[in-house]
Amino acid sequence: MQSDNDTIVAPATAPGGALAVIRLSGPGALAVCDCLFRGRTPVAGAPSHTLHYGRIVERTGPDGTAETEEGERTVDDAVVAVFRAPHSYTGEETAEISCHGSPYIVSEILRLAIGAGARMARPGEFTQRAFLAGRMDLSQAEAVADLIASSTRTSHALASTQMRGGYSSALRQLRDRLVGLMSLLELELDFSEEDVEFADRGELCDTMRDIGAELDRLRDSFLLGNALKRGVAVAIAGAPNAGKSTLLNRLLGEERALVSEIPGTTRDTIEATLVIDGVLFRFIDTAGVRATDDRLEQMGIERTRAAVARAQIVVRLVDAARFAETGSVPEAVTAPPRSTGKAEAPHGQRILTVANKMDLHPGLALPEGILPLSARSGEGIERLRHALRNAVDTEALGHGDPVVSSARHYEALVAARTALGQALDGLDRGLPTDLLGEELRTVLHHLGTITGEITSDEILTTIFSKFCIGK
Amino acid sequence: MQSDNDTIVAPATAPGGALAVIRLSGPGALAVCDCLFRGRTPVAGAPSHTLHYGRIVERTGPDGTAETEEGERTVDDAVVAVFRAPHSYTGEETAEISCHGSPYIVSEILRLAIGAGARMARPGEFTQRAFLAGRMDLSQAEAVADLIASSTRTSHALASTQMRGGYSSALRQLRDRLVGLMSLLELELDFSEEDVEFADRGELCDTMRDIGAELDRLRDSFLLGNALKRGVAVAIAGAPNAGKSTLLNRLLGEERALVSEIPGTTRDTIEATLVIDGVLFRFIDTAGVRATDDRLEQMGIERTRAAVARAQIVVRLVDAARFAETGSVPEAVTAPPRSTGKAEAPHGQRILTVANKMDLHPGLALPEGILPLSARSGEGIERLRHALRNAVDTEALGHGDPVVSSARHYEALVAARTALGQALDGLDRGLPTDLLGEELRTVLHHLGTITGEITSDEILTTIFSKFCIGK
Repeated sequence: MQSDNDTIVAPATAPGGALAVIRLSGPGALAVCDCLFRGRTPVAGAPSHTLHYGRIVERTGPDGTAETEEGERTVDDAVVAVFRAPHSYTGEETAEISCHGSPYIVSEILRLAIGAGARMARPGEFTQRAFLAGRMDLSQAEAVADLIASSTRTSHALASTQMRGGYSSALRQLRDRLVGLMSLLELELDFSEEDVEFADRGELCDTMRDIGAELDRLRDSFLLGNALKRGVAVAIAGAPNAGKSTLLNRLLGEERALVSEIPGTTRDTIEATLVIDGVLFRFIDTAGVRATDDRLEQMGIERTRAAVARAQIVVRLVDAARFAETGSVPEAVTAPPRSTGKAEAPHGQRILTVANKMDLHPGLALPEGILPLSARSGEGIERLRHALRNAVDTEALGHGDPVVSSARHYEALVAARTALGQALDGLDRGLPTDLLGEELRTVLHHLGTITGEITSDEILTTIFSKFCIGK
Repeated sequence: MQSDNDTIVAPATAPGGALAVIRLSGPGALAVCDCLFRGRTPVAGAPSHTLHYGRIVERTGPDGTAETEEGERTVDDAVVAVFRAPHSYTGEETAEISCHGSPYIVSEILRLAIGAGARMARPGEFTQRAFLAGRMDLSQAEAVADLIASSTRTSHALASTQMRGGYSSALRQLRDRLVGLMSLLELELDFSEEDVEFADRGELCDTMRDIGAELDRLRDSFLLGNALKRGVAVAIAGAPNAGKSTLLNRLLGEERALVSEIPGTTRDTIEATLVIDGVLFRFIDTAGVRATDDRLEQMGIERTRAAVARAQIVVRLVDAARFAETGSVPEAVTAPPRSTGKAEAPHGQRILTVANKMDLHPGLALPEGILPLSARSGEGIERLRHALRNAVDTEALGHGDPVVSSARHYEALVAARTALGQALDGLDRGLPTDLLGEELRTVLHHLGTITGEITSDEILTTIFSKFCIGK
């Protein structure tokens, strides 16, 4: 996928609005625009960052159809924004045509632009060109798609920090330190016959451990980053009839899950999303866990266990009656979540224990750390929302620290960390300098795939095909 | 509804695109923009038709959240387009903020703009301001909404001609001629004691008949205009099992209607649309007409009759077997459509008679004017599409003649024509000059409501509330 030298065109806005914007980029962008646009003067001679009012026209034959003016059919009134290279998003000559938001007009303008020599842009091709022109690195380009998709304050902050280069500069610092280490090692190799060590092995080890700690931090931030981007998974677990569906409805403020008094009503895990204080939560309502011969219900229980195991937060719902009856903490509260045959609970899973149906037990004292709730009346729901929000530590975002939210970056960080671990091992084992250098080169390679210093057509195609058209 | 002097803001693009545009208009538009935009220089001092790259920021307190730069939170990178009064769409100071198309970012920019003193625009308020500023007349303003909604070449041509003033100038000519007549009549009134006739009654009558003919033409063009705007209604009628649903599916190229071999399968009239050569057709599949005791089926038959009566084109489908059996034209072809108790057929209804299932009768000769078809094999479908398209006379559009497509304009034209008829009657009956003038004033009044010389808050509210937000 080389930097194409042709002119591309695509609608940059969604259909259905008052306005539509069609974007042209490439060496011929202004010439193509002049084929279909009649302003006071041709835009090919216009200075950068200027706006031009005129008409979009189609040249017609002598048998011209409606609305002909001097052998031209007027498609629409339009304003053209001119950005001259390199002062545009792509770094190329760019024209943005702003017209009335009619699907017919947009398709006509695309047709005329293609007739004048442009070709339809692939998804993300404008941003890909910006990357290839060196206007942003790959992680910044990827953040553009995340930014467009962002729907909450935190997912926006995540993408915004990344797009504005906060993450890139953290990676650059790591790379600079690694390159520094490697040049010392290479110096040793140059003088290898003299058997000197330019790089003090103790210092080398300290620096590598430092880099390892930073890689750990970035890698581990993916737990938060992924949760903020896709939504924090919350499983509502508890015995049948503990009020799980009622709680979900109460949280969402609508009748989402089927509620009845027959235990075992919910068979499907229902996913619903809710934004609390800028953070997206994905709620998973789960079938009540109980011994049953019903095959369908057993399947529901299996799903519950899987959902509970995957969730980042588990709301463990217990009927307050059980505290009242036993006078002590019920087993359901103290027992670990049932085994799923896999990992018991994922890294960093938080469990919130909630005593429901408190309206039926006025004055009941609960053990510390257990939240009182009446899902039916709504009493205590605010406290629960607060507890959910506090279970997600977004402090890193608040400090502007880079938080990794891309699975691709996460994998590269894991690979880089593994290679660094091997380099550290090698250092311990007195590995020859050239093999040590090789390990560090592998670390650099993996970090380079994140920012795009090292890339391939395949990686770029995968990344940009996920973009929308016109970006 | 006076021309408001405040600054309005609204998103001008639909959610879901790569880019979003937010429009600010009013005396404070640039000042509001400067509250939330950081470019190289404030836009308040920028010349018209210039573009400015910068950041959308929110001023934050000392405890500022993520991405702070000097106490500001960056919401997005953006480009602001500046249009200075009166060289803007509304005629007012205007800024258009182009940002990443994230719903979160758009809502943040709206929030910040409102915090800086703008208010959310009502639907169509930008166009309403353009009308109130005299930048377009009311019929042109109305055409803007039609243009945005246009989805076919003909509905686009219709709205485009109207928006570009073709219809307005036709009305202006009519008004000028009426005003000419009235000034002659007023001259007579000034000299009424001398009992002279400045206006030759014969010439007066000719001119009024001329105007009447033009009003008739405009009024009658509504049949075409309305059809092109909303779609030409086509009823597919015929005996049970004649193949009506199969034909509809064949025309649409998809399995839309339920097809079976049991007569009476279709109970609902199914509406489906199809564009043939730039014209939108609305197909109405109808329940087969036959004697039945089935209550549901009887209701279907009632609907058929109503649909057939309303349709502009009726495709009368006859089983080719009936031509083969009788050797003559079957009654179903020659009989008029069954009475609906109302008008037999609306003004200008076209009937296309089609002999279906021709594949079962190879070599069968049909009477002239009857289209052969095999809906099952598709043979003859192109000829039918052609016949449908030719049944709609769009020649007026091709000549750029104004075609009326607004029900509001149609009503005003009907009222104007009625008043003109009364004036002509009065002329015959020797009505006194002042009463004659009164009738002509009524004609002028009704024409004035179309272009908006005469209007009311109520009319404006009705018209612009149908617009989308941001236009």
